[in-house]
Amino acid sequence: MATSALTVRVFSLNCWGIRYLSKQCDQRYAMIGDLLCNGEHDIVLLQEVWSEKDFLGLKNKLTLSHPHSHYFKSGVIGSGLAIFSKHRIHDTFLYRYSLNGYPYMAHHGDWFGGKAVGMAIIQIGSLTANVYVTHLHAEYCRENDSYLPHRVVQAWELQQFIRHTSAGADAVIVGGDLNMHPQDLGTRLLRSYTGLRDAYLETAQFDGCEDGITLIADNPFINKKELIPFEKGIRIDYILFKGSSRAELHCDLMSTTKGSAPEKPFPYSDHEALTAELRLKPLASPETRHDKNHQDSRGVAELVDLLTEARTEVNVGLYCAERMRYTAQRTGIMGLALLILELAIATVPWLALGAEQPFPLTSFYLLAALCCVILVTTFLLYIFYTMELKSLQGAEDQMNLAAGGLLERLRGVSVDHTPQRKPPEGEEPRAFDTEE
Amino acid sequence: MATSALTVRVFSLNCWGIRYLSKQCDQRYAMIGDLLCNGEHDIVLLQEVWSEKDFLGLKNKLTLSHPHSHYFKSGVIGSGLAIFSKHRIHDTFLYRYSLNGYPYMAHHGDWFGGKAVGMAIIQIGSLTANVYVTHLHAEYCRENDSYLPHRVVQAWELQQFIRHTSAGADAVIVGGDLNMHPQDLGTRLLRSYTGLRDAYLETAQFDGCEDGITLIADNPFINKKELIPFEKGIRIDYILFKGSSRAELHCDLMSTTKGSAPEKPFPYSDHEALTAELRLKPLASPETRHDKNHQDSRGVAELVDLLTEARTEVNVGLYCAERMRYTAQRTGIMGLALLILELAIATVPWLALGAEQPFPLTSFYLLAALCCVILVTTFLLYIFYTMELKSLQGAEDQMNLAAGGLLERLRGVSVDHTPQRKPPEGEEPRAFDTEE
Repeated sequence: MATSALTVRVFSLNCWGIRYLSKQCDQRYAMIGDLLCNGEHDIVLLQEVWSEKDFLGLKNKLTLSHPHSHYFKSGVIGSGLAIFSKHRIHDTFLYRYSLNGYPYMAHHGDWFGGKAVGMAIIQIGSLTANVYVTHLHAEYCRENDSYLPHRVVQAWELQQFIRHTSAGADAVIVGGDLNMHPQDLGTRLLRSYTGLRDAYLETAQFDGCEDGITLIADNPFINKKELIPFEKGIRIDYILFKGSSRAELHCDLMSTTKGSAPEKPFPYSDHEALTAELRLKPLASPETRHDKNHQDSRGVAELVDLLTEARTEVNVGLYCAERMRYTAQRTGIMGLALLILELAIATVPWLALGAEQPFPLTSFYLLAALCCVILVTTFLLYIFYTMELKSLQGAEDQMNLAAGGLLERLRGVSVDHTPQRKPPEGEEPRAFDTEE
Repeated sequence: MATSALTVRVFSLNCWGIRYLSKQCDQRYAMIGDLLCNGEHDIVLLQEVWSEKDFLGLKNKLTLSHPHSHYFKSGVIGSGLAIFSKHRIHDTFLYRYSLNGYPYMAHHGDWFGGKAVGMAIIQIGSLTANVYVTHLHAEYCRENDSYLPHRVVQAWELQQFIRHTSAGADAVIVGGDLNMHPQDLGTRLLRSYTGLRDAYLETAQFDGCEDGITLIADNPFINKKELIPFEKGIRIDYILFKGSSRAELHCDLMSTTKGSAPEKPFPYSDHEALTAELRLKPLASPETRHDKNHQDSRGVAELVDLLTEARTEVNVGLYCAERMRYTAQRTGIMGLALLILELAIATVPWLALGAEQPFPLTSFYLLAALCCVILVTTFLLYIFYTMELKSLQGAEDQMNLAAGGLLERLRGVSVDHTPQRKPPEGEEPRAFDTEE
C-alpha cells in the first residue's frame, strides 16, 4: 500500500441557480464552468443547481477535467445538489431530511427544493473517501426564526447520516451551505457528534474574506439589510473533514473568493466559493481503531448540554406544530359547522315548498364554496402538521436515547459490553453511539 | 475478547394493528405480549404497530424481559415499526422511503403509514449488531400491480441503506414484512447487493408452515380469494442476516407459527410470526476484510441482469408517473379554460348593463366551484407526480451508476485504484460499490 500523501482539492459553492429569478444566471454558470474546467479541483461540491439543464451544461464543460459526476434528485424542483470529481465515483446515496419548511410558504421555496444530503463514495488512490454535499433550510429572520426546529432536526439527521454511513470510509469530506453560523446549535451538534473538523479553523494557511465569511455584505447580489446586524457578513458555507484509523487528513490551505471574480463584472454567486487543499496520508498500521470513544468526560458533558439545547429547540418546534395543527383542526370544524348551518337554513324553506329563500342565491353559493375551501385546506394542513409532529417526535426520541447514554457515561457506569443488564430506574436505558 | 459463540433469538411479526379496523386487535396484542414477556427472544422486530398506545402497552408489559425498545415515527400515522431488545440499544436511525404509494389511494393507506426502514445498533456481548426492521408497500393485485415500481425502489433504497450503514457492524440482522415473494425482483436485489442470507433457506432446522409461508390461506383473518393463485399461501416475511470479518453468523433453527396460537381462539395476526435462532461467533483474527468484492464474474453477470430488470420496472413507473402528470396538467388547463370561458360569458351582459344573464345563477356558481376544485386538485397532483418522477429518476440514476461499474468489471477493466482515468466512451463512468 502506498503511504505517500495525496493532495485533494475540494471546492464548494452555492451557485444560486434559480432560473429566471437569479441574476446573471447563465453568465455565472459559464464563469463557474470556466473556473472549474482547468482541473485544479479534485472534488467539486455544488448547491442550488436547481435546473438539471444547468447541471448537464456544466457536466458537458467538465467532461475532461471532471469525468465523474452525479446530480441528486429530490423534492419538486430537485435537491440542487451536484458533485463533480476527477476520481471515480463508486456509489451514491441520498438522504432526504424529514423536515424542510412548509409547502404553503411558497415564496421561501425550501419545501419545494427537497433539501437533502447526498453522499458519493470516491476512490482516491488506494483510499476510499465518503464525500457529502448538503444544503440546509435557509434562515430568513434570525431574531424570529420559525424554521429553527426544522434546521436543528436537519443538522441532527445530517450527523446521524454521516456517522452511520462513514464507518467503512478512510476519509470523510463534507461540503455545503449549512445556513448556520459557526457557533449555532446545529453546527455544534454536527461537529461534536461526528468529530468533523472545520477546514477554516484547522487550515495551516488561509486566504479569503475576514473571519472566513462566505455571505459578504459587499456582494452585489445580496441585500445588505438582510445581513444586519452582521455588518461585514456571515460564515454559513463550510468544508469539513476527518480522517480515520487508516488515513490522516490535514488542511494545508483554505481559500475563499472575495466577492468578485477575476476580470469579471460580477461574482460567481451570492455566496463565496470555498476551496480546501487537504493532505491525505494513508497510515501504515490501520489496525488500531481509534476514535471509538473520541469524547472524554468533558466532551461528554458538552454533548449533554448540546443535546439539552437541541431538545429544547425541537420542543419549541413541537409546540408550534401542535398549535398549528390545533388551529387547523378548529378552523376545519368551524367551516364544517358553518356549512351544516347554511344547509339547514336552506333546507327549511325547501321543505316548506314555495317559501322564499332566506338569503340571496349568490351569497348562498359563495358561502358554501368558502366552507368547502376551508374544509379542504384545513384537512391538508392537518395531515401536514401531523407528519411534522411525527418527524419532530422521532428526532426527540433519538435525542433522548443519545442523552440517556451520555448521562450514564457521565455517571461512570460502564455502558459497553453489558448486555442483559436491567435499566437503572425502570426507564428505557440509552447509550451514546460509539460507532465512529 | 471472548470467542465463545452467542445465541441470538430474533422474532419478527407483522402485528396488523389497525385500531378499530383490525379484528380482535386488543386481544391479539395481549397475546403477543404474553408470548414475548417470557423473554425467550433477544430481539423482537414488529411491524404494523400503528398506534403508539399499543407500543406503549407492549413496552410496559415487556419492561423486564426486554428493557430496551424503540418506536420509529414517520408519515401521518407512523411507520408502524417497533423494536424490543434484551440487549442495549446504542443508537437508532430511520430512513423513510422516497416513494410509498399515493395519498389519494386512502383505502390502501400505505402513503399515510410513511413506510421506512428503522435501524438499531445493538451491543451483543463484545459485538455490535446492526438490526433493521422494515415494512414495504403492500401488493394489492399481483397481476396488475401499479405499486411495483414503488416497491422496487423501496427495495433498492433498503439495500443501499443497509450496505452503507453496516460497514462498522459485526453482524447484520434484518427482519420485516417485505411484501415480496422470495423470487421477486426486490428480494433478489436486496439479497444480491447486500449479501444477506435468508434464515429460512439457510437454517439447519426448520419448524413451521410448508415452504416457509407466512401469509397462509388457513388464517381466519385472511380473505382466501386474495391469495389466488397461491392456494396455500405466500412467503413475504423474512429474517435475513450476515456476519462480517469480525464475527460469523449461522442460523441453527428457524420456526414460524402455523396459523394458530396455542390455546387461543385465533392467531396472533394475519401474518405468521417468525423466529430465528442465530449463532454469533466472534472471529479471532478480525483484520482480514473479507466480503470486499464478494461477487465473482458469474455473480456480477447476475447482478447486471437484476439491475436491467430493476431499471425496466423503474422505467415503467416513470412512464406511468409521466402519463399521470400529463393528465393532471391537461385536466388543469381544461378547468382553467372552462373558468375563463364562463367568466367571459358572464362578463358580457355585466358590461352591457341590464342585459339578462345567459345562464341561471345556480349553474354559474356550481360550474365555477367545479372549475376551482379541478384547478386545486390538479395542481396538487401535478406537484405530487413531479416529486414521484424525481425520486424515480434518482433511483434510475443510481442504478445506472451501479450497472456501468458492473459492466466495466465484466469487461475485465480493473476499476479499483485508478483515479484520474478518462471514461471509456466519453460517458460518465460508473462502478459497482465495493463498500461491503
